[in-house]
Amino acid sequence: MSSILKGIAASNGIAIAKAYRLVEPDLSFEKKEISDKEQEVSRFQQAIATSKSELEAIRDKAKTDLGEDKAAIFEAHLLVLSDPELLTPIEDKIKTEAVNAEVALKETADMFVSMFESMDNEYMKERAADIRDVTKRVLSHLLGVQVVNPSMIAEEVIIIAEDLTPSDTAQLNRQFVKGFTTDIGGRTSHSAIMARSMEIPAVVGTKSVTDEIQNGDLVIVDGLNGEVHINPTPEVIDQYKKEHEKYEAQKAEWAKLVNEPTVSNDGHHVELGANIGTPKDLKGVTEHGGEAVGLYRTEFLYMGRDELPTEDEQFSAYKAVLEGMEGKPVVVRTLDIGGDKELPYLNLPKEMNPFLGFRAIRLCLEEQDIFRTQLRALLRASIYGNLKIMFPMISTLNEFREAKAILSEEQAKLNETGVKTADNIEVGIMVEIPSTAVMADLFAKEVDFFSIGTNDLIQYTMAADRMNERVSYLYQPYNPAILRLVKMVIDAAHKEGKWAGMCGEMAGDEIAIPILLGLGLDEFSMSATSILKARSQISRLNHKEMKELANDVLQLHTNDEVIEAVKKVTEL
Amino acid sequence: MSSILKGIAASNGIAIAKAYRLVEPDLSFEKKEISDKEQEVSRFQQAIATSKSELEAIRDKAKTDLGEDKAAIFEAHLLVLSDPELLTPIEDKIKTEAVNAEVALKETADMFVSMFESMDNEYMKERAADIRDVTKRVLSHLLGVQVVNPSMIAEEVIIIAEDLTPSDTAQLNRQFVKGFTTDIGGRTSHSAIMARSMEIPAVVGTKSVTDEIQNGDLVIVDGLNGEVHINPTPEVIDQYKKEHEKYEAQKAEWAKLVNEPTVSNDGHHVELGANIGTPKDLKGVTEHGGEAVGLYRTEFLYMGRDELPTEDEQFSAYKAVLEGMEGKPVVVRTLDIGGDKELPYLNLPKEMNPFLGFRAIRLCLEEQDIFRTQLRALLRASIYGNLKIMFPMISTLNEFREAKAILSEEQAKLNETGVKTADNIEVGIMVEIPSTAVMADLFAKEVDFFSIGTNDLIQYTMAADRMNERVSYLYQPYNPAILRLVKMVIDAAHKEGKWAGMCGEMAGDEIAIPILLGLGLDEFSMSATSILKARSQISRLNHKEMKELANDVLQLHTNDEVIEAVKKVTEL
Repeated sequence: MSSILKGIAASNGIAIAKAYRLVEPDLSFEKKEISDKEQEVSRFQQAIATSKSELEAIRDKAKTDLGEDKAAIFEAHLLVLSDPELLTPIEDKIKTEAVNAEVALKETADMFVSMFESMDNEYMKERAADIRDVTKRVLSHLLGVQVVNPSMIAEEVIIIAEDLTPSDTAQLNRQFVKGFTTDIGGRTSHSAIMARSMEIPAVVGTKSVTDEIQNGDLVIVDGLNGEVHINPTPEVIDQYKKEHEKYEAQKAEWAKLVNEPTVSNDGHHVELGANIGTPKDLKGVTEHGGEAVGLYRTEFLYMGRDELPTEDEQFSAYKAVLEGMEGKPVVVRTLDIGGDKELPYLNLPKEMNPFLGFRAIRLCLEEQDIFRTQLRALLRASIYGNLKIMFPMISTLNEFREAKAILSEEQAKLNETGVKTADNIEVGIMVEIPSTAVMADLFAKEVDFFSIGTNDLIQYTMAADRMNERVSYLYQPYNPAILRLVKMVIDAAHKEGKWAGMCGEMAGDEIAIPILLGLGLDEFSMSATSILKARSQISRLNHKEMKELANDVLQLHTNDEVIEAVKKVTEL
Repeated sequence: MSSILKGIAASNGIAIAKAYRLVEPDLSFEKKEISDKEQEVSRFQQAIATSKSELEAIRDKAKTDLGEDKAAIFEAHLLVLSDPELLTPIEDKIKTEAVNAEVALKETADMFVSMFESMDNEYMKERAADIRDVTKRVLSHLLGVQVVNPSMIAEEVIIIAEDLTPSDTAQLNRQFVKGFTTDIGGRTSHSAIMARSMEIPAVVGTKSVTDEIQNGDLVIVDGLNGEVHINPTPEVIDQYKKEHEKYEAQKAEWAKLVNEPTVSNDGHHVELGANIGTPKDLKGVTEHGGEAVGLYRTEFLYMGRDELPTEDEQFSAYKAVLEGMEGKPVVVRTLDIGGDKELPYLNLPKEMNPFLGFRAIRLCLEEQDIFRTQLRALLRASIYGNLKIMFPMISTLNEFREAKAILSEEQAKLNETGVKTADNIEVGIMVEIPSTAVMADLFAKEVDFFSIGTNDLIQYTMAADRMNERVSYLYQPYNPAILRLVKMVIDAAHKEGKWAGMCGEMAGDEIAIPILLGLGLDEFSMSATSILKARSQISRLNHKEMKELANDVLQLHTNDEVIEAVKKVTEL
């Protein structure tokens, strides 16, 4: 039976392939009394042997496909499987307590895990994680259920998952993964951002994809319209194959614009930049014709590790990005941690409303060592390119003044000790808190530029957590309230001769682009993979007409009315 | 040694009395092996006997001071102390396991508590709570530490606490409690609101009051300046006694205004209303000269119970308030539950950011049975007074339209079945979400009135959880960003011939009042106890001058600059 699921179109394109379920198997079991203990021990040893050969295969494949460092984790797992300190007590337990191997394994492993986790030692904590992973694998063989091995995927598949975590995606072989579809998440969830950066189609937030799709089902992911087709008819497959070819042809057309400027059909220039997370992302920026890095999210330097990055580590990363961009602008956002982005080693207290909490510049102004280290690294790197520094989550003028004073202090100290720094570094702010948009006229006299962070600005302005499914319908980028705040910011900047950019999801959105062009936005920063499409769209728009459109939509009542108005005028 | 602690002035006035620590005692103990088991059993029985006579005294006192219903809980505790099903296993445990009474008591009680709590039965869950409370009391006697018995307070005291919960305050005898001071909380925390409604001075958020103050220390709570003096010198005491008299004289002066209108010294009229939670609060409204109920928080009808209130229960409450106000306006806010206000029986899922979550009108539009029941009760009550209905947490025009359509539907249905309803019920909204303030011009064409809810509006506009100590410095009522939004709302209302009120904490604040008067606010709704002071303040202000002041402060940069400007012009 063929069927269709609706979801949120999270990454453009069309993919047709077999389903691969990235879903945790059911590893529950019951305690049993065992009469033949020797046989139970041998059943356990068999499961260990199977796990070992499975892990060896995975390790070898990971080495070839993903590199030595990604393979190291499986090496660690193999060591656990050969450790008599773990295996002997399990076998003893089966023999002396006459329990089934599952119980003996689980209880012994849990004991080691909690022992290692309670130690104040990062190395031992990692061992605890290894034991936990290995226990799952051995249990799956004891129970005869299949554990998922995403790194073993060797044919073209579409990943079916509840949600995708960063560690899931790290294990995927990009060559074979043709598309994603998930139960939960929205356009700004990790899965969605990941899909766009991998340039593969994705539909998220389908609610039931893991219930409806089995391994091996033929699946079409329509990332243009937010649809997932399960075991479609041959006619539907044909039709989608044609759509796919059309989309590929369109992409080829866009690719011709890679070295072109971004100009409307009546000659109005804007700048299209890319949002990046690491120096590795620069390749994509160049390939897709980015004219700038409009947002360098420095958090990634601080994540997935056990302690703060040193000043030199940071310096190297910033220098690499600045040099890689060869004099084109690079807007670096200082540390935006807290909220949904945690750093375990900072030991921040749990908050009731983390999105309204102690994060980003609030944390940096309090934990000044962290902040000053980052600023010094940035200042030292500044001579290698066109650096602009941007502070996140600014809500009051005092915060900006304080942050800028700290920057000046560090610059003066460096210069005194003979360290050179660029002397024309622009210093700006993210506008992502309503108070700052409302006060943009006064901010504009003191900052060098604004970059509007729509993901947060929308959720604060509408008082709706964008991660919360029950209120995500209020995450309305085209609500005239949002557009009016955007206008305030752009107008305020221009009045003081400053520039205004945008680095939220909205900057690369085809409905928003005509309005933003009309409102006079100077710089659009988006996923690198959206740049060429946006450049193509802008080349077909008339700036004067978009000005009128923008004026009109500010007087509309609802998000939907705005979408309709844009579609009407721009024939989307 | 005398010393001074600084905190947040949460309720006006000055109190001088001995300290009473409302702090949980340390009930930790170690497991011991007991040689003389008989003696240990008798030690246990002695602790039971002492607890019984203590509880009897508390029950008798509670009956006299607080009434039968408040005393019932202690009756239940006494029953637990006489229950052989609990006591016998404890004594058996001491004898058979040779453990100390503390261990036998705790382990046995914990077993019963978890058994009762696991039952899906409210009655048994309450028994679990009783056993937990009684166990604490018996433990305290075994350990020789003092458990707090707030209902036994029989002399004038100042309560010293980490924080005060609603159940703590319910047990306090208002006759003897002269003041509060707490470690945590801000001006809008429960303790602070409670203190203002009890009309006793309070200083909250001192951070260390429970560390610094012992039972019996002499304490001055200066709720005017946010100071707590510990064991002050005789000179300081004298000075504060004079201050206290001065403040009492001032209150007597204000009391003369109880039947006067609220008019500036150049003849500009405004309306001063009260925020109430139950019909019982009406007495205070009348006594303090309230001209309206500007906010009736209907949540209280839904709280502290096991199921939703029926339509008839709600009808009675609404009718009582409307009749009690004798034709004066009563603005009823429909259910604002969720966020920090939970209703356990609704089984709402836990949210990561409850303040940005599924609450108030969002919940009502989804759970329409709850909403329609409340609206029917309101409509039926409407003929008994001057009812205005207000929807909370409106963020889009669609939400308002949908809520109003449901109201009209219910009104039509009632009228069809012959039930009368008033035909001039004004329908308005709370403006507490930035998007709504920004869109006020369009809302004003469709609503009958606005009431600005500053507590939430400030926290969303500044993106700072007001309950979170680490960012509470960003809860800035006078930040020009907030004042500009307030102005947008008032101007939009007036342009369409509608009225604009305010029902957040800010409406009764002496720094805010001059600005709000200048911005043209029509209705100020506050704690009843703040009304006379506000009326007195307004009678001394010049409306024309305040208009100029308001215009000027909108162009200032920071919260502090605004405070300074107001103080300069109004001689505060």
